[in-house]
Amino acid sequence: MPTTLGQNQYGKAENRVVKITRDGATHHIKDLNVSVSLSGDLDDVHHSGSNAHVLPTDTMKNTVYAFAKEHGIESPEQFGIVLARHFVTTRAPIDRARVRIEEYAWERIGTGGGDGGGEAGGERGGHSFVRRGQETRVTQVTFDGERVEVVSGLKDLTVLNSTDSEFWGFAKDQYTTLKEAYDRILATDVSARWRYGWSGGESGEAGAPDWNESYEQSKRHVLTAFAETYSLSLQQTLHRMGTRVLEHRAEIDEIRFSLPNKHHFLVDLAPFGIKNDTPDGAVYLAADRPYGLIEATVLRDGADARIAPDLTTL
Amino acid sequence: MPTTLGQNQYGKAENRVVKITRDGATHHIKDLNVSVSLSGDLDDVHHSGSNAHVLPTDTMKNTVYAFAKEHGIESPEQFGIVLARHFVTTRAPIDRARVRIEEYAWERIGTGGGDGGGEAGGERGGHSFVRRGQETRVTQVTFDGERVEVVSGLKDLTVLNSTDSEFWGFAKDQYTTLKEAYDRILATDVSARWRYGWSGGESGEAGAPDWNESYEQSKRHVLTAFAETYSLSLQQTLHRMGTRVLEHRAEIDEIRFSLPNKHHFLVDLAPFGIKNDTPDGAVYLAADRPYGLIEATVLRDGADARIAPDLTTL
Amino acid sequence: MPTTLGQNQYGKAENRVVKITRDGATHHIKDLNVSVSLSGDLDDVHHSGSNAHVLPTDTMKNTVYAFAKEHGIESPEQFGIVLARHFVTTRAPIDRARVRIEEYAWERIGTGGGDGGGEAGGERGGHSFVRRGQETRVTQVTFDGERVEVVSGLKDLTVLNSTDSEFWGFAKDQYTTLKEAYDRILATDVSARWRYGWSGGESGEAGAPDWNESYEQSKRHVLTAFAETYSLSLQQTLHRMGTRVLEHRAEIDEIRFSLPNKHHFLVDLAPFGIKNDTPDGAVYLAADRPYGLIEATVLRDGADARIAPDLTTL
Amino acid sequence: MPTTLGQNQYGKAENRVVKITRDGATHHIKDLNVSVSLSGDLDDVHHSGSNAHVLPTDTMKNTVYAFAKEHGIESPEQFGIVLARHFVTTRAPIDRARVRIEEYAWERIGTGGGDGGGEAGGERGGHSFVRRGQETRVTQVTFDGERVEVVSGLKDLTVLNSTDSEFWGFAKDQYTTLKEAYDRILATDVSARWRYGWSGGESGEAGAPDWNESYEQSKRHVLTAFAETYSLSLQQTLHRMGTRVLEHRAEIDEIRFSLPNKHHFLVDLAPFGIKNDTPDGAVYLAADRPYGLIEATVLRDGADARIAPDLTTL
Repeated sequence: MPTTLGQNQYGKAENRVVKITRDGATHHIKDLNVSVSLSGDLDDVHHSGSNAHVLPTDTMKNTVYAFAKEHGIESPEQFGIVLARHFVTTRAPIDRARVRIEEYAWERIGTGGGDGGGEAGGERGGHSFVRRGQETRVTQVTFDGERVEVVSGLKDLTVLNSTDSEFWGFAKDQYTTLKEAYDRILATDVSARWRYGWSGGESGEAGAPDWNESYEQSKRHVLTAFAETYSLSLQQTLHRMGTRVLEHRAEIDEIRFSLPNKHHFLVDLAPFGIKNDTPDGAVYLAADRPYGLIEATVLRDGADARIAPDLTTL
Repeated sequence: MPTTLGQNQYGKAENRVVKITRDGATHHIKDLNVSVSLSGDLDDVHHSGSNAHVLPTDTMKNTVYAFAKEHGIESPEQFGIVLARHFVTTRAPIDRARVRIEEYAWERIGTGGGDGGGEAGGERGGHSFVRRGQETRVTQVTFDGERVEVVSGLKDLTVLNSTDSEFWGFAKDQYTTLKEAYDRILATDVSARWRYGWSGGESGEAGAPDWNESYEQSKRHVLTAFAETYSLSLQQTLHRMGTRVLEHRAEIDEIRFSLPNKHHFLVDLAPFGIKNDTPDGAVYLAADRPYGLIEATVLRDGADARIAPDLTTL
Repeated sequence: MPTTLGQNQYGKAENRVVKITRDGATHHIKDLNVSVSLSGDLDDVHHSGSNAHVLPTDTMKNTVYAFAKEHGIESPEQFGIVLARHFVTTRAPIDRARVRIEEYAWERIGTGGGDGGGEAGGERGGHSFVRRGQETRVTQVTFDGERVEVVSGLKDLTVLNSTDSEFWGFAKDQYTTLKEAYDRILATDVSARWRYGWSGGESGEAGAPDWNESYEQSKRHVLTAFAETYSLSLQQTLHRMGTRVLEHRAEIDEIRFSLPNKHHFLVDLAPFGIKNDTPDGAVYLAADRPYGLIEATVLRDGADARIAPDLTTL
Repeated sequence: MPTTLGQNQYGKAENRVVKITRDGATHHIKDLNVSVSLSGDLDDVHHSGSNAHVLPTDTMKNTVYAFAKEHGIESPEQFGIVLARHFVTTRAPIDRARVRIEEYAWERIGTGGGDGGGEAGGERGGHSFVRRGQETRVTQVTFDGERVEVVSGLKDLTVLNSTDSEFWGFAKDQYTTLKEAYDRILATDVSARWRYGWSGGESGEAGAPDWNESYEQSKRHVLTAFAETYSLSLQQTLHRMGTRVLEHRAEIDEIRFSLPNKHHFLVDLAPFGIKNDTPDGAVYLAADRPYGLIEATVLRDGADARIAPDLTTL
């Protein structure tokens, strides 16, 4: 029966790389999870098992570690670009490389600050770290031989507003029982992906954004928009977060969010003779499932929509 | 600054529904995790927070439970179709519904068989179940007002061949250190999605496949192809699994796999004076990370490729 | 300030061992996760960092793999005993070894049967396996130089009765709102640990139980007792499961269960004009958290209670 | 066959409570996961299913929420004590209550500080929070009608020293292949539990420690000891962490740690002509499994050892 081979890609996923850089007694740490995926002229291996065009995924792993030493890790974006360019430019059958990276943040023990400067924190503080543990920074770099596409973002950034959120005036049908809410908790785990306009320079990274600064500022704008938006719906908050990032970060053309609405139900304490929601506070049940799930893209006018719609499988 | 709202969708994720059906003392069980996502004329809620077009996600949850009682659950596909049609046909602002469902399988205690027939297993066996625990069955039903698209599949089906797998003749570069292998373990967690050609009849499900039979047979073909393929690469095994399903199941037009190559390393016991790989057996270290990741689509000739390439985020 | 070093132990956790045994073209598989922990005269390493008494945990890992080849894996219990005896008898400073093992079950592709016999399933079925995916078998072997203690069991065996469960006549206080239930779903994830009376023979395993047979039969008795007990409380079902195992398996002296009460709430469909619980069936919401948690030990009369009470950390 | 009922307990696990407290526009948040477990005269329910002595676990859930409103949540310890005392003193058949609580920390958006003071951070910062995401604070309160026992601690606090760690001079046998290390990465996820000497006052919490201050200081001492110890073995570091807490916190009598040794392997880049470990830095592979696991208790002289040895199940 005649069949056709469709889109295919292969690679090595979840290479866990820790790079220590030393300025004398002051050390810096980069902690990444790197996944490489290559596409190209790979029909033979699917049809006959001929591996002539197949660079082993073990080699991709070796390359990740070797490049961490040779090229350093300034940012996950820069590191992903070097890797993606390498595989496409050195392997003739490969015409597309996608590198996805997660970065886990650490801070110095004793200073509470980031791993950013010379304030090494005394005798032994220079090499001691505690994992920050908040969001995970992510990036996806794709190179097709001509253009670099960088989509970066974050996941698992859990935020909550304890007031200034309402939900009413919604559509109703015969299955609607929800009461309107004029003061509720709004909580979500932010998953965001933003696409940069820069698509590669003649000689490597000329003109590229300052990836680390862009990340820190974009995260800050997401948090600020979440905190400052008086919300009539999570969609409105999402849109404000996206718009704020685009307003302040000219290097970003498109941003997409996937936001679970983490329901916090006001507990009915009336059966026990207790009034729950009083001026001094209230008690909520934090529910697990089901949850609302709000997803949308905000684009700079004229920009193409290129971020894949599905950031979850649910 | 001018921005545009791009693709957006919202819904209720992970509604956990258990439906018990009773034939006298013999009970049947269906155990689903249902996620609903709707799209349409929803600009207002993003821009101003007006919820006039927003059916609450709480209503979607209610609908899922009400429909489980009213329409029953013959299969996740049938149930998803009823739900997806409902939201699009009853809500004017909604022009697209996507319903994703996971199904967890149970078998009767005492019989070892499935929940398929009248062999209820004696006095009390008719209402006692143990969760099967193997793969998770999944489906995604999309309805846009005209066509139904059904993409079904499975995930977390862990398989292993202890021989008849080789890997050699691969490309090499300066970072290649892997030795060729002429007899290795091949193991993976199968994640597969297949798309049905049927796209909806005039009056509901006329002409629809037998979803449960199709699932069971497709799973069987995947397992059989995995077992019967003498493998020179995991890509070859993947292609054979996909081709076999298309060869035997005319109702399926397209199938995509995402297969981690779960490495099992032969342990070097030579330092202890022990020869490991002898005719009577061998000892392997089952590694966690990194792992190979092989992904591809196989299409019936002439079919469109519509399954999204990324079944993972790595 | 004067302090004392209390109980201490160290070891290598989660050694993932896969052992393939070959009878010609028919292969057998054992898939274990082995954790070793040793205690003894180890004060120095805590006080001064002197490692003179510290066998590296890396050596424990090597020993696990070497023993898998040299001694084979008939059962996790037998394998754990060989390992525990080895560390105590060969290392003077070590006076106690504890080996914990998880075993993951596989079945042959194509036969649906276990990995138990010569029914190898045709041409290529002899080396192709699919992970069974139901419960995880566990064991803990402790050896103190004189006695072997074996505590085995299982976890994550999910079971459900769709009727023959009630809950009423319970104590009430001012915080009680629960309605009495005369027909409810009873569901749990069974976690069980049973202790064997055998404590080691003169020459190794003389007189030891048939570990695999004992496991299969104990699991069967747990399932049967769950299915056959008309339950007025999960405690009663637990007690019946424990008693049944002790009644039928003379080699077991003590058994402990930790059973979450996985609540399934009958959904109120009255607002939609639907009667939910009718003779032909009902729809339930499967809840995540919170859940009841029922834990108890059942002992053969005269037996010591030696299984630790806490099988969970919640 | 005669059997005996051994230790048994039952309760409601994982009650997810969020309490918002309001000082005008400035809000405070407490986010807990509360598990209650009761023991006492409960033989009947196991033997006959009589629930006359069984307060429903649903009532425990209600009590948790009602008490969060009525008694407030100053600390998980204080809240656990109120709950544990309540169940034992109001329910005659209950003679022991154990309450386990996890607390998730939040910080204010915009200030970077904790939820500790009046620095509410401007217009809207007073009600906007981001989950801190680092360690989880835990406590276990047990009350037997006379004495309160409080064991508190933390888990999942991930720390790393990039130098000042060695491992050599260890014992060797025929399975030892590990090379001695004179400069390695030392990394672990700290899980610690400390027991307070205070066991309850005449009238409630008279004389109780300042639980929040004690927690913050104990965490700080653990981090400082980890950073400042030049380590010849993880056991030595563990002992120093425990001793430092006991030296500085007179209210604590006993502390136990469970520390995975998270191996970071220096990658061999020699095949690629690259020297890895140079003065300016090095590249490591962060491994998952297996890992060392180091566990020990440090006691104030004369104190009883009452913390259960097993903080893990591996």
